[in-house]
Amino acid sequence: MLVAIKRKRLLEVTVVCIALSIMKDDWQFALRSSVEQVEEGDVLAPKFDEHGLMPCITRHAATGEILMFAFMNEEALRLSIDTQQAHYWSRSRQKLWKKGETSGMRQNIQRILIDDDQDCLVLEVELTSPDAGGEEASCHVGYRSCFYREIVDGQEGPALRFIESEKSFDPEAVYGDTPNPTQL
Amino acid sequence: MLVAIKRKRLLEVTVVCIALSIMKDDWQFALRSSVEQVEEGDVLAPKFDEHGLMPCITRHAATGEILMFAFMNEEALRLSIDTQQAHYWSRSRQKLWKKGETSGMRQNIQRILIDDDQDCLVLEVELTSPDAGGEEASCHVGYRSCFYREIVDGQEGPALRFIESEKSFDPEAVYGDTPNPTQL
Repeated sequence: MLVAIKRKRLLEVTVVCIALSIMKDDWQFALRSSVEQVEEGDVLAPKFDEHGLMPCITRHAATGEILMFAFMNEEALRLSIDTQQAHYWSRSRQKLWKKGETSGMRQNIQRILIDDDQDCLVLEVELTSPDAGGEEASCHVGYRSCFYREIVDGQEGPALRFIESEKSFDPEAVYGDTPNPTQL
Repeated sequence: MLVAIKRKRLLEVTVVCIALSIMKDDWQFALRSSVEQVEEGDVLAPKFDEHGLMPCITRHAATGEILMFAFMNEEALRLSIDTQQAHYWSRSRQKLWKKGETSGMRQNIQRILIDDDQDCLVLEVELTSPDAGGEEASCHVGYRSCFYREIVDGQEGPALRFIESEKSFDPEAVYGDTPNPTQL
């Protein structure tokens, strides 16, 4: 009898815990009701573009370096907020992209900022190193940041100059035969 | 006779100067020929999206703060490179936008970075203060940066918290009756 009551109690507690967990993750993005609400309010009312995407700038939380630029859809933003792990929408692969799922180069979110009209994000992240070895980095080409070149004056107009002198990891060792996302 | 020769010489020198000036500004963006050229080369071969636009992240050259996010078309990028003054494409007004032309809050470019696949830019800029008075800033709402709020845990899901405590200038004094670019 006592065992039966304890089991029933355990079941009740479990149900309540699951319900609370669902409620916590079941938040909604607010509707956009006015320019004042969007610009001066404390309500998260993001605007996704005609493709359902929002641009996102990612920078290193400790150094401030701009590491990469990508897009999020609603699911990626929700997962990034809920898990504090960076998720994006891969336009080249047309799928949700948890950063680091192939490479091990994860991004642990320290802070998320949003801009005045709530259609652009800044992620401040800490990085992890590639599973296959190398230094912490973010760019699939092997450099620490995707912004590894600056535009300079050349002989016949603008040219590029590398500002990172060497790669942080070997992209072949990390990505193997995974298709390169760069499109011409 | 001597005056006529001097005039002719002056005309020749003027023509040569104008020709050289046109040649210098008459550079072309390179065609994109291979992934290796785009990712590992020193040739500027930018990719604009289906609307002819490229995303651009602007940060303060001295402090590293991310100030704003906007888009450039080919003309805006060309003008930004040639004049070292930030130019963008205004999507809300559908016109070329020289930053600061209304407000006086210009952006003097110190460096331009481009990413691995050459479809995103970082501008590092110094700011000027509004003509109507106030501190140097970048955001039309009056804050120094457009990213003046962070996403935090709220009672019923994510909410926003201001990380800038006061405005750098009075937007009404600076912009007057200019339509607000924020769209719902």
